[in-house]
Amino acid sequence: MEKQQAIRPLSTTALTIAIDAMGGDDAPQMVIDGLVRARFRHMDVHFELHGDEAKLQPLLAPHNKLADCTSIHHADVAITMDEKPSQALRQDGRKSSMWMAIKSVRDGTAQAAVSAGNTGALMAMSKVQLRTLPSIDRPALIAMWPTMIGETAVLDMGANIEVNAKQLVDFAVMGSVYSRILTGIQRPKIGLLNVGVEETKGHEEVRAAATLLANAPIKAEFVGFVEGDDIGKGTVDVVVTDGFTGNIALKTAEGTARLISDFLSRAMRRSIFSKIGYLFARGAFQRLKDKMDPRNINGGVFLGLNGVVIKSHGGTDAIGFASAIDVAVDMARENVAEQIADEISRMMDAPLFERSAGNAQADEGLGEAKAALP
Amino acid sequence: MEKQQAIRPLSTTALTIAIDAMGGDDAPQMVIDGLVRARFRHMDVHFELHGDEAKLQPLLAPHNKLADCTSIHHADVAITMDEKPSQALRQDGRKSSMWMAIKSVRDGTAQAAVSAGNTGALMAMSKVQLRTLPSIDRPALIAMWPTMIGETAVLDMGANIEVNAKQLVDFAVMGSVYSRILTGIQRPKIGLLNVGVEETKGHEEVRAAATLLANAPIKAEFVGFVEGDDIGKGTVDVVVTDGFTGNIALKTAEGTARLISDFLSRAMRRSIFSKIGYLFARGAFQRLKDKMDPRNINGGVFLGLNGVVIKSHGGTDAIGFASAIDVAVDMARENVAEQIADEISRMMDAPLFERSAGNAQADEGLGEAKAALP
Repeated sequence: MEKQQAIRPLSTTALTIAIDAMGGDDAPQMVIDGLVRARFRHMDVHFELHGDEAKLQPLLAPHNKLADCTSIHHADVAITMDEKPSQALRQDGRKSSMWMAIKSVRDGTAQAAVSAGNTGALMAMSKVQLRTLPSIDRPALIAMWPTMIGETAVLDMGANIEVNAKQLVDFAVMGSVYSRILTGIQRPKIGLLNVGVEETKGHEEVRAAATLLANAPIKAEFVGFVEGDDIGKGTVDVVVTDGFTGNIALKTAEGTARLISDFLSRAMRRSIFSKIGYLFARGAFQRLKDKMDPRNINGGVFLGLNGVVIKSHGGTDAIGFASAIDVAVDMARENVAEQIADEISRMMDAPLFERSAGNAQADEGLGEAKAALP
Repeated sequence: MEKQQAIRPLSTTALTIAIDAMGGDDAPQMVIDGLVRARFRHMDVHFELHGDEAKLQPLLAPHNKLADCTSIHHADVAITMDEKPSQALRQDGRKSSMWMAIKSVRDGTAQAAVSAGNTGALMAMSKVQLRTLPSIDRPALIAMWPTMIGETAVLDMGANIEVNAKQLVDFAVMGSVYSRILTGIQRPKIGLLNVGVEETKGHEEVRAAATLLANAPIKAEFVGFVEGDDIGKGTVDVVVTDGFTGNIALKTAEGTARLISDFLSRAMRRSIFSKIGYLFARGAFQRLKDKMDPRNINGGVFLGLNGVVIKSHGGTDAIGFASAIDVAVDMARENVAEQIADEISRMMDAPLFERSAGNAQADEGLGEAKAALP
């Protein structure tokens, strides 16, 4: 089934990115359009396109230059957006374009995989094939948000609907390593997302995680609880939360950005003065629009895996998908997964974390944290 | 301890609003400044000011007209922002300005209470003094959000950190009544906030609530799950979620609005063209700013109580506090609490909900919903 087309010899330094061509609301057309854009920015990258060859071949054909650096790998199955992760892992799912793209990362033929498909299925397949790093229970989805003073990494963006205190601590560690690699800040500031900055507020898990983090030997500064508006302020470098809250916060922020853009363009059309104003200021508007465009911050990274897997929005367009490919190329070049593995293993050797492992450790930590609470 | 000053005879139709003068980061100065603004809009309203008379008297003194329609009621205690609800309910707490303001509503001397203080304490005191409506376990905090096509009611905004399926259904019913009263829409559309619109996604509580709502005899249209960006789109009239998620979504949206406003003003100062543009368009900018100003949507309403209690942001300024007073006046005039009580009791008589009551009902509902899930 896996037939390669347009095989090109790759230099040892060249990257290969595996693409799930069937994932996303507007796939595969959107994927091809995204690749057309991405190719200009990454002339030395080879793309492995996994999906329905009969559909992909005619879409790719008009783009000679892209076809030269792309190979199509036929996959019979496409994972749907409403498929449960457990279904996706069954036999048919293991013939899917999503599975095959991740398999290329596992086999070492690709250095990163990108999919705009079902998040739950992508995480389940990544976990099964790539395995999590030692002492990490579950991978998390991280994304960079624009802030008043730069960018803040936020995780988890939706991979883990329910988490315990130990997992929130894992997220904090992974997020701080990611932030350090991307921004160069040696001791990134970490905040736990909560409904108030007081120690008595919030879920039990969040309060227990705060107690653990206050004592954890991490190369980061844990500042305590932060609130929703601290993300945009850039109060910290890394914001840690569960996947349910993180996903809703992200989408609410996107919705707010679109709402304001809508208000603004309506306000600009209201009078002759505002129309003239718009003519003069449209360069400024365009810069603002680019900065707030969710397509430009599209592309979340799964952290905690033995490999790089990038999740693009299900509803993304070609611009957003190309942006996710940018992230994949950066992550693969920086060997982020390996760097995190090193950092985590170093931290896990520290006294607080070496006493026990896995769930027993999580429970113990939670018990300790509970006891320490007022 | 309760000494009245400047007692004025009130006509039978006049409203009295009880104010917790000591609640909020910048209280009591901010509260007095807010009242100065609010008085102009509500010339026929009497204000009961609960708090430290020694502090309030000199702040009120310069404002003759406000003093004429305001009575100071001394309270020895002020609830702090980090006090636990259980602490706030102890003996000293029952001498607090917050407690006394709610007591006026219970005693019928005021038709609504407003506080910018500790949310948890305000809810606990409201629940103890006013009691919840029959068959409502816990009150919820609701707020109106601006959307592309109007306004959407969102609840819970932070009163209930953890909720079960039955409570989410209660929120949906209360929110739909509130929306109907405020907007006149006879069958408001209700959406449950989730990480995806597919039935297989999200917390167990959210999925169980969806099953219950699909079968509930409510005067509203349950459209299923909505995502964070649906709030700004105005997809539904009422968005239902737990208080942890709702509070973080609200603050994230506010943070995003401030972030964009900051980007915009920086972009406008960048070049001579954008500066000229700004001069022409500043009327449009001001309208946008007013529309997105969180102070103008400040003022959440506790639903599910035998009385009206309005929560203003802890960090609000005078403009925001005046806006919360506006909400209090509207709610008291519309007898919203009574209307909700009628609607809830009517709904609770329906077959689905009359079989059991309280927690047993919640558990049963959850069990049924679980059984109905795929």
